[in-house]
Amino acid sequence: MTAPRPLRIAEIFGPTIQGEGALIGEATVFIRAGGCDYRCVWCDSLHAVDSAWRETWAPMTPKAVWDEVLRLSGGRPLTVSISGGNPAIQDFAPVIARGKAEGYRFACETQGSVARPWFGDLDTLVLSPKPPSSKETVDWKAFADCVAAGAGAGRTVMKIVIFDAADLAWARAAHARHPELPLYLQPGNPEVDPERSVDPQALADRMLWLVEQTTGAGWFVPRILPQLHVLIWGNRRGV
Amino acid sequence: MTAPRPLRIAEIFGPTIQGEGALIGEATVFIRAGGCDYRCVWCDSLHAVDSAWRETWAPMTPKAVWDEVLRLSGGRPLTVSISGGNPAIQDFAPVIARGKAEGYRFACETQGSVARPWFGDLDTLVLSPKPPSSKETVDWKAFADCVAAGAGAGRTVMKIVIFDAADLAWARAAHARHPELPLYLQPGNPEVDPERSVDPQALADRMLWLVEQTTGAGWFVPRILPQLHVLIWGNRRGV
Repeated sequence: MTAPRPLRIAEIFGPTIQGEGALIGEATVFIRAGGCDYRCVWCDSLHAVDSAWRETWAPMTPKAVWDEVLRLSGGRPLTVSISGGNPAIQDFAPVIARGKAEGYRFACETQGSVARPWFGDLDTLVLSPKPPSSKETVDWKAFADCVAAGAGAGRTVMKIVIFDAADLAWARAAHARHPELPLYLQPGNPEVDPERSVDPQALADRMLWLVEQTTGAGWFVPRILPQLHVLIWGNRRGV
Repeated sequence: MTAPRPLRIAEIFGPTIQGEGALIGEATVFIRAGGCDYRCVWCDSLHAVDSAWRETWAPMTPKAVWDEVLRLSGGRPLTVSISGGNPAIQDFAPVIARGKAEGYRFACETQGSVARPWFGDLDTLVLSPKPPSSKETVDWKAFADCVAAGAGAGRTVMKIVIFDAADLAWARAAHARHPELPLYLQPGNPEVDPERSVDPQALADRMLWLVEQTTGAGWFVPRILPQLHVLIWGNRRGV
């Protein structure tokens, strides 16, 4: 048996609360994987995506990753959220196996472009297909493979970031493709430079617009949630 | 058979999103019942509690209540949240029966001082025992009766508003009494006058404090959520 290949890790931080989506408010340690097959124009995690940051990504064995989660959480089980970048371009099965053996719960957020058998080991699989404003294109066959790979997970949900009316129309069509997935919509945050402060009023306005265009327009399917961490902490990393 | 007694209704509004707790972000029409057996010193809904507002509470038959929910929702099923005041001092069984027959889902939020058989008909029962800062005292026997009455509900959760360290210690003890109930904590909002604007930074600071004192201190049980509607819309009614 050979040693597992090291993982490229942009950051591991927490415990803090999950700021968005299905697990909003839940105590979480985040593992942010380095590297991504997408380049969304509004990416808020370029430090984990763009290879310009590659030398800041630590090569870590699954054991080293797990030891860091244990250290941060004081050995007390909580939810571990694996995000990125796209964590599905790497193999997190060994990390998940270690954590589950110790009673930790796992969530993973990925765009749904690469299916992994370990999706089925998760408690929560969040698939975030990227709408037109991202300038990326979704491969729906690959997405369906991800849904299938997550069949053993506790639950799989779909989360879509919405910047404009075109994104919203696209989200309705995406939901029609996968009505079996609970849908979460999140207003996009156009200010992603951590050096610049966030305007909470502008974020509130985007949230209001999205609620008006969905709930207010009689479409009651999606849950609409802002990025709490941006509303409350601003754009700083590691929170 | 006699006609059901009219309900005292402070307001019916929506659809908007649920701003707090287990259903945060979900499309909801709110039925706010008038009247309460508590007088929490920081009550944010005195217009539905204090009898000074009594003449603003409309006496409505269950059918009239339901017709208004239908009108607001355009007849499209969504979640109906019954709050107050304390809705459990009135009989909402006929409203729930009408709505469930048409595919609507029901949530109810009550402090847990009065148990009702119709708790078992709900999709989500939110029991919100009031911590010491409220200056109210919880009758834990009555609370346990509420938990028992909700056994048939889709789920029952506990939500506690936290103003200070004493409230937080109390919440830990409350959770120890009912570890079977998923726990949600919410920072208290000391500014409850709808005529005064909310300071979003102060709300953010209260949220940060609560996250530090729970998640940051290694207590990973509760989900910590702010009142989104206050963060985003301010204290205005009917949103």
